[in-house]
Amino acid sequence: MIKTPYLLFLGDAPDQLAAKVAIGIKDWRPENAVAQLRMDGCGADLGIVEMTLSEAKAAGAKTLVIGVANRGGIISDAWKVVLKEALGMGYDLASGLHNLLRDEADLAEIAAANFCTLHDVRVPSVEYPIANGKKRTGKRCLTVGTDCSVGKMYTAMAMDTEMNKRGMKSTFRATGQTGILITGGGVPLDAVIADFMAGSVEYLTPSNDEDHWDHIEGQGSLFHVSYSGVTLALVHGGQPDALILGHEPTRAHMRGLPEYQQPSLETLRDTALALARVGNPACQVVGISVNTQHMSHDAAVAYLTKVEDRMGLPTVDPIRIGAGRLVDALAAI
Amino acid sequence: MIKTPYLLFLGDAPDQLAAKVAIGIKDWRPENAVAQLRMDGCGADLGIVEMTLSEAKAAGAKTLVIGVANRGGIISDAWKVVLKEALGMGYDLASGLHNLLRDEADLAEIAAANFCTLHDVRVPSVEYPIANGKKRTGKRCLTVGTDCSVGKMYTAMAMDTEMNKRGMKSTFRATGQTGILITGGGVPLDAVIADFMAGSVEYLTPSNDEDHWDHIEGQGSLFHVSYSGVTLALVHGGQPDALILGHEPTRAHMRGLPEYQQPSLETLRDTALALARVGNPACQVVGISVNTQHMSHDAAVAYLTKVEDRMGLPTVDPIRIGAGRLVDALAAI
Repeated sequence: MIKTPYLLFLGDAPDQLAAKVAIGIKDWRPENAVAQLRMDGCGADLGIVEMTLSEAKAAGAKTLVIGVANRGGIISDAWKVVLKEALGMGYDLASGLHNLLRDEADLAEIAAANFCTLHDVRVPSVEYPIANGKKRTGKRCLTVGTDCSVGKMYTAMAMDTEMNKRGMKSTFRATGQTGILITGGGVPLDAVIADFMAGSVEYLTPSNDEDHWDHIEGQGSLFHVSYSGVTLALVHGGQPDALILGHEPTRAHMRGLPEYQQPSLETLRDTALALARVGNPACQVVGISVNTQHMSHDAAVAYLTKVEDRMGLPTVDPIRIGAGRLVDALAAI
Repeated sequence: MIKTPYLLFLGDAPDQLAAKVAIGIKDWRPENAVAQLRMDGCGADLGIVEMTLSEAKAAGAKTLVIGVANRGGIISDAWKVVLKEALGMGYDLASGLHNLLRDEADLAEIAAANFCTLHDVRVPSVEYPIANGKKRTGKRCLTVGTDCSVGKMYTAMAMDTEMNKRGMKSTFRATGQTGILITGGGVPLDAVIADFMAGSVEYLTPSNDEDHWDHIEGQGSLFHVSYSGVTLALVHGGQPDALILGHEPTRAHMRGLPEYQQPSLETLRDTALALARVGNPACQVVGISVNTQHMSHDAAVAYLTKVEDRMGLPTVDPIRIGAGRLVDALAAI
């Protein structure tokens, strides 16, 4: 686990989009974000208090999190000046970049000398077991999408947040770099060796109280030919009691695959449910989460109503409308 | 690619079962097997000529293949005496053991000094791309099973052999250690990083002549919760034009999963075909391959007839009966 709270390093991020990781932390774990640290020319701004390394240290920050996904994923010399100073002051560092912190000899050396930990969340730090398929106690919910990047993580986060508000037992289970940095732990599923994918998901979502919900972060799509195997490992390793269908209605084609179209929600429902019932015969599809960020409010509301009428399932945009009705559906299981 | 032909090292294999890799090579690529080399107390025998290292060298052998899957996968000191002598004589070594040849400092040193290659086929040697899903030319056949270890590799090998006999253009594409050692190349799919699984299958089965068939070695099962993700990567990365259903009728439960039952052939057919058509809308299920090794001949023939009547598809045991009717079905596409 990564030590919280964090100081969020935005570096010289060219724009707001590049600060996706930091924005996720600020949105979903504001209590983890002591402050932001920006370099000259930084084009991103979280709208939270700005602090120097020493100010944030005094305010309790334990880890400097690289909250930027820059092109190429490189740790620049300009960044290193800040990172080295942070290590010298006793900060741990955490990063989801392809360029691993541990592979930078100078950072590794200063970290060792200062007893600081370098967290490279892009690579697994655990030897996961092979999945055994044994029934686990507690409840699990997984969002499966018609495509990649349709808001599966945000849906899981929103349901977890809503359950916590209601005093229900609930944990968000991160399976990607951003989710791991937001919550401080999880499995970087896309970097796990094929044979151990489902086992890593079992490891991530162990037996729990009967009334506890794991909200497992989805990945890929059963219909995205580049990543579908990762998704099926989640469906079988996660043993979900409930599936949420995730959709983004404005896509012209599957993400990164111009020759492929998204399946209908009906096809996704039937395919995912049949596969999920191999691992958990009691699994149900309980709701639909639509990412309407590229639609006007009126168009979004009309779309949600139309889908809900057609599919007969509570249909929301958890960001625009809230995840309350999805949580109602889960609570009724 | 591993240099052929081979000298097959059986070491001190306790019994015939432990020599599975060597038996596969002898059965499917007898022209690759110059001879066998056995140590004192070896309980396995391929029934082929026995040679010393120097005799086999004189007969043209290029690579000493460890044809034994011993418990724990360890390279013993007794084996090393032989392996070092082989390297000294200029043999390459090839192994599918967990204990990698390259991790043995003494072997690595002698190999380097003699310009010999150590092939550890259990780990990938290529940086595979992410799958792009683009339509490739040529035809591909994949066997999908109701369970793991139902004879998918033997089915693919048998169809490839039959096509070669008929003068058709055909290649067996190995996706597991045994298949790679048998043919000298392939992708060790279970050891590939999750994000690159489907891409590695695309890499393995590139565009080819329109009348060329790739016979892709299957892995796992869409219904085996430990490995289903690997199977779906084959279904989507392989872009099969034809699926063969594989089944072993005497299993009490899914391999290694006492709580799980094999699906019916009908369920496998419908599930696999729907998923395969995401990647190749023209995909068809063309035949059934049943592993009847644990049945009497009469019971096997009766079972094959019953399944063929029920499913309306050519149904054979490719080892007992031959793969001719499966190849007929592929040729008709």
